[in-house]
Amino acid sequence: MSAIDFDKLRSRFHLPDGKVYLDGNSLGALPRHTETRLKEVISAEWADELVSGWNTKAWIDLPLSVGEQIAPIIGAASGTVVCCDSLSINLFKALTACLELNEGRSLITLEDGQFPTDSYIADGLSRLLGADRCRTQAVDIAALTPETLSESAVLLLSHVDYKSGALRDMGAITAMAQSAGCLVIWDLAHSAGAIDMDLEASQVDFAVGCTYKFLNGGPGAPGFLYVAERHQEVQNPLPGWMGHARLFDFEAKYEAAPGIKRFLTGTQSVLALSAVSASLSVFEGLAMHDVRARSLALTGHFIARWEQSSVLQSHAALGTPIDDAQRGSQVSLALESAFPVSQALIADGVIVDFREPNIVRFGFSPLYNTFSDADQAIASLEAVLTSERHRLPQFQIRSTVT
Amino acid sequence: MSAIDFDKLRSRFHLPDGKVYLDGNSLGALPRHTETRLKEVISAEWADELVSGWNTKAWIDLPLSVGEQIAPIIGAASGTVVCCDSLSINLFKALTACLELNEGRSLITLEDGQFPTDSYIADGLSRLLGADRCRTQAVDIAALTPETLSESAVLLLSHVDYKSGALRDMGAITAMAQSAGCLVIWDLAHSAGAIDMDLEASQVDFAVGCTYKFLNGGPGAPGFLYVAERHQEVQNPLPGWMGHARLFDFEAKYEAAPGIKRFLTGTQSVLALSAVSASLSVFEGLAMHDVRARSLALTGHFIARWEQSSVLQSHAALGTPIDDAQRGSQVSLALESAFPVSQALIADGVIVDFREPNIVRFGFSPLYNTFSDADQAIASLEAVLTSERHRLPQFQIRSTVT
Repeated sequence: MSAIDFDKLRSRFHLPDGKVYLDGNSLGALPRHTETRLKEVISAEWADELVSGWNTKAWIDLPLSVGEQIAPIIGAASGTVVCCDSLSINLFKALTACLELNEGRSLITLEDGQFPTDSYIADGLSRLLGADRCRTQAVDIAALTPETLSESAVLLLSHVDYKSGALRDMGAITAMAQSAGCLVIWDLAHSAGAIDMDLEASQVDFAVGCTYKFLNGGPGAPGFLYVAERHQEVQNPLPGWMGHARLFDFEAKYEAAPGIKRFLTGTQSVLALSAVSASLSVFEGLAMHDVRARSLALTGHFIARWEQSSVLQSHAALGTPIDDAQRGSQVSLALESAFPVSQALIADGVIVDFREPNIVRFGFSPLYNTFSDADQAIASLEAVLTSERHRLPQFQIRSTVT
Repeated sequence: MSAIDFDKLRSRFHLPDGKVYLDGNSLGALPRHTETRLKEVISAEWADELVSGWNTKAWIDLPLSVGEQIAPIIGAASGTVVCCDSLSINLFKALTACLELNEGRSLITLEDGQFPTDSYIADGLSRLLGADRCRTQAVDIAALTPETLSESAVLLLSHVDYKSGALRDMGAITAMAQSAGCLVIWDLAHSAGAIDMDLEASQVDFAVGCTYKFLNGGPGAPGFLYVAERHQEVQNPLPGWMGHARLFDFEAKYEAAPGIKRFLTGTQSVLALSAVSASLSVFEGLAMHDVRARSLALTGHFIARWEQSSVLQSHAALGTPIDDAQRGSQVSLALESAFPVSQALIADGVIVDFREPNIVRFGFSPLYNTFSDADQAIASLEAVLTSERHRLPQFQIRSTVT
């Protein structure tokens, strides 16, 4: 039995009436407490404290204090996480740091079909530094061995793949790569807040993530960066004043702050970080293995319903591993006409999303989704496919951007 | 006569009761409309629209649409400004672009005593690329000539100096540097929203700025980047998915979007950008030369009161140019015991700030400060210095961070 009362937990979120929201893997729902807290930050703190809020309301500490809130959720030690900038920017910092730490190697290895911003940033770094200092290669994840990594400075992988929802074995892959002298960066965008993990036990080198999915930090909320304590002497390639050892002395020469603080660059949005902080408070007192168990129960229930449905068996292939140990917190179904089907589901009030070329993603946020949500999504999908409602002209229009 | 009703304009801001707020050059006050708008973004958009808000509420367009709002305030053409990331990150993009555009030159020139993050980012880029590809030099601004810039790829200067409040001649310096084959980046942190300028007429190459000072975008609000249209073919060194030509096709290869959009990297905070957007609406219909005239009238009035005060004449030296054409929107006074004096003023309700080694800054935000604010600040400063109240022990403690 889980120690968590999930009905009570769900009631802490604002969820839209009459809809089944299965896109928390893209944008998490609004915790009621966050709504209240943000109004206070705007109408009491910014309005009345004005510039003194940097001191009196500890705004200046937010990147580190929010990092401390994230740390237990991802199994990171205190003093190893900072919340700032975007995932992409933090990845640039981590990749550059790995090349510096793994002197003598210049190759970045990532996965074929990885979330695009990861490869764009890696290729951009190669372009900036030149091929002699940085090259990239994309490989099939099944082909990863110590031999294929023997020249790699760093391996960059997604913990959960954004399309398939496949979960990777963080500990085994990290150990394998490190045995080949390769550092490892994990992209936690699709796992932080839904999957239990232990960055310290897995001896992860670096990790990046975002806070707007399962951490419910709000649309476009800041990214985060994990740097293992043993690597925190490395320099930030984007050394801004917020990472200086004595920022308000305004010294002409940069001196990196000790610890994780040096990975800060410029000033961060207090509104954005206050939202993340408030939303993370929902995780207080939750054991992540209970959260993970709920996630598996929800996706497992959805998959069982898919297995029982003759309509779905003939129209929709499972794109997500059926093995619990390999499944993240979403179920991807591959369908013909996947885009119009996704639009017809949304019109029915079942909020999902489409990914190229033929994937409909059903994301389950363990903090607020229910077994009833899974049942309704299955019923709606069956109804759409049976009625062929997705063939209506309005569902063919590709005007959406997410 | 100005066409602007400044009393009415002031009433559009939430200003704290019983205080004289002269630190809008550090953090701008909250527009009442922004407070209302943010509550709507949280309680109606995030809460109810959830992921569809990226389309239905045009969140995805915010970095560019807010850039379009900033453009007329800084005399930039449509399609040349993007609001994203921090000033420091945008500066990294601009400096890297200048080195690429000005092939064959590797020197970044900036000013002695420039705001530290500018030199930290430039030095960090030099460290990252190596001295053969990038070096930095800091010079006395008075020593800038075409000869001293003959080897410089780029000159990076603050439009208004953060300590002295001195305003630089954007057009003349830009033309001088360009005559030496040097590109120019202007840091507009302390001028955007208070000083009328024309980036196009001045043929500026790049500019960076922040939105939390005279643009009133909120604590830690995002930075902005201006790229002259003629330079928009250059690559972003931080190429993230938001700058891709077809971001939601999730293509493996990066292809930069046309125009200013390519300078986007990762996902941006919708809360932060919505605040900036709402606050910028206060500028709609205001002619920037009227705003500038108000700023000069306010700082000029403050300086005239300083000149008339025998107490201030003997204790406080003017650190800001008295010539209108060389003055930004703050007045800096150099005093013995400047830190305790600033703390005593704050205790009196006159919100100013201190900068090393002996500066008290009186910032005038032309949209909401008044002549009475200047009078009260002068009276309070006279009272502190006459009574020597700043010698009280509580005003000696350097615990503040801003």
